[in-house]
Amino acid sequence: MHSIEQLQNLVNKAITDTKYTEQPAELYEPITYLMQLGGKRMRPVLVLVSTELFGGNILKALDAAIGIELFHNFTLMHDDIMDKAPLRRGKPTVHAKWNESAAILSGDVMFVEAYKLMIKVDDGILREVLAVFSDTASGVCQGQQADMNFENRDDVSLTEYLEMIRQKTAVLLAGSMQIGALIGGATQEQAKLLYEFGENLGLAFQLQDDILDVYGNPEKFGKQVGGDILSNKKTFMLIKAKELANGNTASELDQWLKRSDDPLAKVEAITSIYNLLEVRKLAEIEMEEYVNKALKALNLVSVDSPNKELLRGFAEQLLIREH
Amino acid sequence: MHSIEQLQNLVNKAITDTKYTEQPAELYEPITYLMQLGGKRMRPVLVLVSTELFGGNILKALDAAIGIELFHNFTLMHDDIMDKAPLRRGKPTVHAKWNESAAILSGDVMFVEAYKLMIKVDDGILREVLAVFSDTASGVCQGQQADMNFENRDDVSLTEYLEMIRQKTAVLLAGSMQIGALIGGATQEQAKLLYEFGENLGLAFQLQDDILDVYGNPEKFGKQVGGDILSNKKTFMLIKAKELANGNTASELDQWLKRSDDPLAKVEAITSIYNLLEVRKLAEIEMEEYVNKALKALNLVSVDSPNKELLRGFAEQLLIREH
Repeated sequence: MHSIEQLQNLVNKAITDTKYTEQPAELYEPITYLMQLGGKRMRPVLVLVSTELFGGNILKALDAAIGIELFHNFTLMHDDIMDKAPLRRGKPTVHAKWNESAAILSGDVMFVEAYKLMIKVDDGILREVLAVFSDTASGVCQGQQADMNFENRDDVSLTEYLEMIRQKTAVLLAGSMQIGALIGGATQEQAKLLYEFGENLGLAFQLQDDILDVYGNPEKFGKQVGGDILSNKKTFMLIKAKELANGNTASELDQWLKRSDDPLAKVEAITSIYNLLEVRKLAEIEMEEYVNKALKALNLVSVDSPNKELLRGFAEQLLIREH
Repeated sequence: MHSIEQLQNLVNKAITDTKYTEQPAELYEPITYLMQLGGKRMRPVLVLVSTELFGGNILKALDAAIGIELFHNFTLMHDDIMDKAPLRRGKPTVHAKWNESAAILSGDVMFVEAYKLMIKVDDGILREVLAVFSDTASGVCQGQQADMNFENRDDVSLTEYLEMIRQKTAVLLAGSMQIGALIGGATQEQAKLLYEFGENLGLAFQLQDDILDVYGNPEKFGKQVGGDILSNKKTFMLIKAKELANGNTASELDQWLKRSDDPLAKVEAITSIYNLLEVRKLAEIEMEEYVNKALKALNLVSVDSPNKELLRGFAEQLLIREH
């Protein structure tokens, strides 16, 4: 069994070793640039962990793992254009460094490269892996579209929100694990359990992210604490608060949502409203439900492997309340 | 055997019958819109013709044929953003009718849908079909990038130009025919011959298009005659003219390339230079070489089928000089 760090190193080495020699160079340089900006490589690592979980050789899963990371970065490249984001991991985004056309077209060819890597799996699982990968890709696009639609709506329900984050975030973690399992030799049923584990874990992760945006330790949280509040992002926290607030609290929340003149006061005021309505607790309860669903799926996986404990640990750390 | 018109009708019916029921609707509406703008459906028809050429059932190739048309329209959707084109077939482009983000994301999901259709081929040819499709997709992206690069360059050589149109246009015709042949039961070698036929035919078609832009009958040519001249597009005609012109002719050509104040005079003057340098004849010679290469590949296809005559006819009509 390999540690997460060993797997991250393996993924990073494979990415660094990938040289795109095809022309025109302008098409491939942004791919190399974006792929080498770093990151935790969570998705490819989960591919490899899932392969090893079923006794498979991680080297047989490496192409697919990199394919998943390419796909993920392709969605980031296109999302950054749509979001007009100037920075990604502290560096200029591709459309900012090159231009929009380059970011559109490099993204497109990156998606092709991802498929080219997925196609390398064995004959026996080729059709299944491609079906999972394609469904995952559709799901991620649907999630991104839903996320954009939500920006112009004030009546997003919790159900709609959870469905959006399921597609935009959870489905790719789930698909990564299912593909890894298939490569590792899992039956379709067992691989499906890994999908369920990944999907519920992904939902829990996103809810944790929503909580940490408000209550996270600024030194540990990778992004600006309060960022969601300042951009009026419809997170679990805000949607739940709007659902529960009435009377003065409701009008106070509405007022603050309209204001952008005093960022610090806005974060403080909306956090106070969240405290009053105890939305953190409600988010944690929801999160725990997803963690429990994830663990239930994992328990049904009929293998005995240290990686099962590792995955259990991933999930259980989300149960530790930080307050 | 089916006529081209029957195959076009079959393709059009399949496109009309395709209803995307997944959500959000905003993601799928642009796909339906663009796919139903019409067109000759040349690529999917060539898939079907190639399948039937080898005795295959066209109904077994219909999904792949629509997949090819989806892919082609996905590239149009993204190209139109990059080219800032307001119209496509006389109707607003997707980014003009919706917005850029919708055109980026709908295009992405359209690409996924194309792969989903390609995956439906039989096990025995799945890997090969996907490899051809993915290589074709890379080629088209490379061609589009090269085309964009050429806009900012004044030293594009004929070799570079031919390689660009090979990737941007010919490769997709070639891949369509190779995939159709594989579905029809052709061996890899025979399918490869169809690729060669399609590739050379595609190059000849593009050269014909370059010629018709200058010398076409305005009533028959689908686009504005002289459009390439007005946009200083580096076509075979212009590149060859720049290569051959010297003295007064060279400086006259340079002057006209810099002017945009009198479109009619510009088209007339540059056409006169083309006449003087006889670039039409040179383009026709080049075109004929490609047609002959195409026919040579077709002759090596060891089947006896009316569709072979039909394909030969496609190629030979390019040999008829219109002047």
